[in-house]
Amino acid sequence: MIIGRVVGSVVATRKNENLIGNKFLVVEPVEKFRANNSNIVAIDNVGAGIGETVLVALGSAARVGCNLPQAPVDAAIVGIVDSGTGWE
Amino acid sequence: MIIGRVVGSVVATRKNENLIGNKFLVVEPVEKFRANNSNIVAIDNVGAGIGETVLVALGSAARVGCNLPQAPVDAAIVGIVDSGTGWE
Amino acid sequence: MIIGRVVGSVVATRKNENLIGNKFLVVEPVEKFRANNSNIVAIDNVGAGIGETVLVALGSAARVGCNLPQAPVDAAIVGIVDSGTGWE
Amino acid sequence: MIIGRVVGSVVATRKNENLIGNKFLVVEPVEKFRANNSNIVAIDNVGAGIGETVLVALGSAARVGCNLPQAPVDAAIVGIVDSGTGWE
Amino acid sequence: MIIGRVVGSVVATRKNENLIGNKFLVVEPVEKFRANNSNIVAIDNVGAGIGETVLVALGSAARVGCNLPQAPVDAAIVGIVDSGTGWE
Repeated sequence: MIIGRVVGSVVATRKNENLIGNKFLVVEPVEKFRANNSNIVAIDNVGAGIGETVLVALGSAARVGCNLPQAPVDAAIVGIVDSGTGWE
Repeated sequence: MIIGRVVGSVVATRKNENLIGNKFLVVEPVEKFRANNSNIVAIDNVGAGIGETVLVALGSAARVGCNLPQAPVDAAIVGIVDSGTGWE
Repeated sequence: MIIGRVVGSVVATRKNENLIGNKFLVVEPVEKFRANNSNIVAIDNVGAGIGETVLVALGSAARVGCNLPQAPVDAAIVGIVDSGTGWE
Repeated sequence: MIIGRVVGSVVATRKNENLIGNKFLVVEPVEKFRANNSNIVAIDNVGAGIGETVLVALGSAARVGCNLPQAPVDAAIVGIVDSGTGWE
Repeated sequence: MIIGRVVGSVVATRKNENLIGNKFLVVEPVEKFRANNSNIVAIDNVGAGIGETVLVALGSAARVGCNLPQAPVDAAIVGIVDSGTGWE
């Protein structure tokens, strides 16, 4: 998983039907997790808001782990980071 | 998922039979999602056109989430981006 | 999927038994898909030859989509590119 | 798999319910495995501690191989490295 | 798949039980496959030795294709490269 900050959201009216009902947030990885300088669009599985520091799962883990096995989802916010060490 | 713009298309007459009937579009990630400067060939799941800004799912999510579990597909356009913040 | 050119092949007499019978080709991504300057060894699912421009599927899509679900294959040539735009 | 050192931990009170009970450690890949300069948040499957050198599995292997098939986990510490060659 | 050379091995006494019985080798990708300058720890599926040039499968292919579907394995040596073109 990586740690990032929620910096925005995406509205897509026309979309795959298995995506309906999900919120799409834009996450910017924090510096130590900024592997390739790319932001990520992730669905929100925990009620995250703009500016919060979050834990993001990537790949099939996002889809299967958020009970959306048939949805085209490859990234999900799965935790709100309260505190910790080694990542700031 | 990442956000990109449709910049072209690909014609492949000879191909894996599970790919038949799909449209192959070339997507250029927008700057904040341009992890590695690489374009992507994605199947079109939502009727996207050249120049549109789209949401692209990568990996097994593309295949499973677009009801093509047996096709060799690793990227799919799954939404047309109307608006949003944090990605432009 | 990415687009590349077939630039060589690999011979491996001693190999995992689920790989037997496959042809291993070396693909060099074309410039706009050259994310990380790395070539790829892909199995050939469409009868590709040296010098041809091909469509390559990566990850579980290669294995599952080429009817090799039990083989240790993570890349497959799944189409011969005839023409297109946005990738040259 | 990659080799890294445990450099910290993450506390996330609000999280996906399938993550409850797991310890989240921050791993910094050692130099020869530092592909993209990014740290990783991994669950701990072997009782690792801060400062230890560990083996980390990435992708679906982390989830399936640690008996958490339904959890949004994409990285797991699966071994404590005692010794070896070619990685320091 | 990528091509690399076996440059070392890893000893991990304390490890996930599904890894027991496997040999962990360190593979350094050859130059044309050195996407991100990172070595890889792979299990050995073909009896490879230090210095040999090998074919490495990554991701779920390593686990499923080597008959270790429940092990946290994301890379496996699946062939010994005898000869070929386009990769040296």
